[in-house]
Amino acid sequence: MEIVALAGGIGAGKFLRGLVRAAPEARITAVVNTGDDVVMHGLHVSPDLDSVTYWLGDAFDRERGWGRRDETFRATEELRAFGAPDAWFGLGDLDLATHLFRTPLLAAGVPLSEVTARVAARFGIVAALVPMTDDPVTTRISVVEGGIETELHFQEYWVARRARDEVKSFRFEGVEASRPAPGVLSAIAGADALVICPSNPVVSVGPILAVPGVREAVAARRDRVVGVSPIVGGAPLAGMADKLMPVAGLEVSALGAARAYADLLAAWVVDDEDAPLVDSIEGALGVRTAATDTIMRDDDTSEALAHFALGMLGA
Amino acid sequence: MEIVALAGGIGAGKFLRGLVRAAPEARITAVVNTGDDVVMHGLHVSPDLDSVTYWLGDAFDRERGWGRRDETFRATEELRAFGAPDAWFGLGDLDLATHLFRTPLLAAGVPLSEVTARVAARFGIVAALVPMTDDPVTTRISVVEGGIETELHFQEYWVARRARDEVKSFRFEGVEASRPAPGVLSAIAGADALVICPSNPVVSVGPILAVPGVREAVAARRDRVVGVSPIVGGAPLAGMADKLMPVAGLEVSALGAARAYADLLAAWVVDDEDAPLVDSIEGALGVRTAATDTIMRDDDTSEALAHFALGMLGA
Repeated sequence: MEIVALAGGIGAGKFLRGLVRAAPEARITAVVNTGDDVVMHGLHVSPDLDSVTYWLGDAFDRERGWGRRDETFRATEELRAFGAPDAWFGLGDLDLATHLFRTPLLAAGVPLSEVTARVAARFGIVAALVPMTDDPVTTRISVVEGGIETELHFQEYWVARRARDEVKSFRFEGVEASRPAPGVLSAIAGADALVICPSNPVVSVGPILAVPGVREAVAARRDRVVGVSPIVGGAPLAGMADKLMPVAGLEVSALGAARAYADLLAAWVVDDEDAPLVDSIEGALGVRTAATDTIMRDDDTSEALAHFALGMLGA
Repeated sequence: MEIVALAGGIGAGKFLRGLVRAAPEARITAVVNTGDDVVMHGLHVSPDLDSVTYWLGDAFDRERGWGRRDETFRATEELRAFGAPDAWFGLGDLDLATHLFRTPLLAAGVPLSEVTARVAARFGIVAALVPMTDDPVTTRISVVEGGIETELHFQEYWVARRARDEVKSFRFEGVEASRPAPGVLSAIAGADALVICPSNPVVSVGPILAVPGVREAVAARRDRVVGVSPIVGGAPLAGMADKLMPVAGLEVSALGAARAYADLLAAWVVDDEDAPLVDSIEGALGVRTAATDTIMRDDDTSEALAHFALGMLGA
């Protein structure tokens, strides 16, 4: 059975950790958002790809909730002493190695998808990790500040300003001209199960589906698509989906999140807390919906959730 | 009194540490070799500039003999796990910050001399640190391996292969087209004392003097030039001058080192161990020569040596 997962960073890594226990890892392809990618200190940083890599490579810091375990931040602290403009973005010393490995390869013309495969290999990851595209796509958030609209890089909005600004709109710069990375469309077309991970539907899964051809390819496999709600009890478990979903015209609820994928889903998984919504979601969207424990406290609960999601496809 | 020092990495940093105690730091300009500069993991590394900066900024690791004190090497160790091609070159985590600060500025078109001034400011250095040139100059070493001549970057020859190859020749790639960095020629012209630090005469001071106009500018001030021998008792105190001086036709001795600067020196300082050579150096080169303790064990002995050298100019 071939499985494709559409993955952001928050939630997706945790879910994938269970998925590779619920199904053969070698049969799993994770298509990962790169709209958050950013150049910091001249280095190409791919936050979602790296989160997923560190999760699957068992190198993620679960306590901190981002970056690598047993991490130190000596270079970043020193960059702050230099007054370096990008030092608000904390790059760990171990994490830096990933970016120092990636950046010169990209500069030499090696596509991101190839570099990603090499990084994954270093962490012993058997699943295929694929960026949504090898082309540059950048999520930009327009915010209103003192009455004036300013456009921020997603990382600036999220990490530097902690999502405190009033958001006017967002866009995925470059996405119209981007092409799916090699293997993305064929993996989707050949998948027995497609899982939309519990990631931000607007800025994590949204960019993946905005790459020309991807949404259509997923829709063509609609009977094999299951999604897991990132919204539990009307709030995201992590991240800033509550700030961005309304901008996209989506209610911050398990129903609102399902609506983002209304044309794609055969099945939808919500948390037990949202069990009362099951009927209304099925009624509104015609999508088979069921509730289970979606709070991934450890690999066991992640695995159980993955089993449940695949089970909804009869897989 | 304005002082200009021509500086490599090895020996120069230690000497400059004494010089800034022997004379007002604000009156000192160090013109530093950049022939050893190298791109590692896409980062612009300036080993001699950084050595001098860390020495003057009291951040140098005197025990290890290179790099920063209290350093860790987590990113480099991790890069080794990645199999990164440049991981033989040990970049410390604190040291990385210097290169991460410098590289994007250079990429944005800021000249190396300006970046160097900003790095020096972060370390509270009052003396002017100036690269010999803002243009790319690269020291290349031709070695013979299994009967075949191969050209290596200086760092490859020195750090990766520990100077074990038989050297056929060397060159300073790009030096003909290079121009002295802003301020270099005027500092030399206006100096009351010019000190050639106890650095490798071939690959440390050699590249500085090879930048068009520099050697002539120093020669024009010959009556104000004093050098300190990097060779003591027929061997370099550090580095690989013993391997490279013969290739340049220089005997590995305090006399051979003086010969490299025969057209430039008013005075020459040798170690007490080489006191027996004083007369023959004066006889052979017509350069006022004297012996003192040149072994810089600490800042006090460095300061005494700097006083002695300046004293030979009557300064």
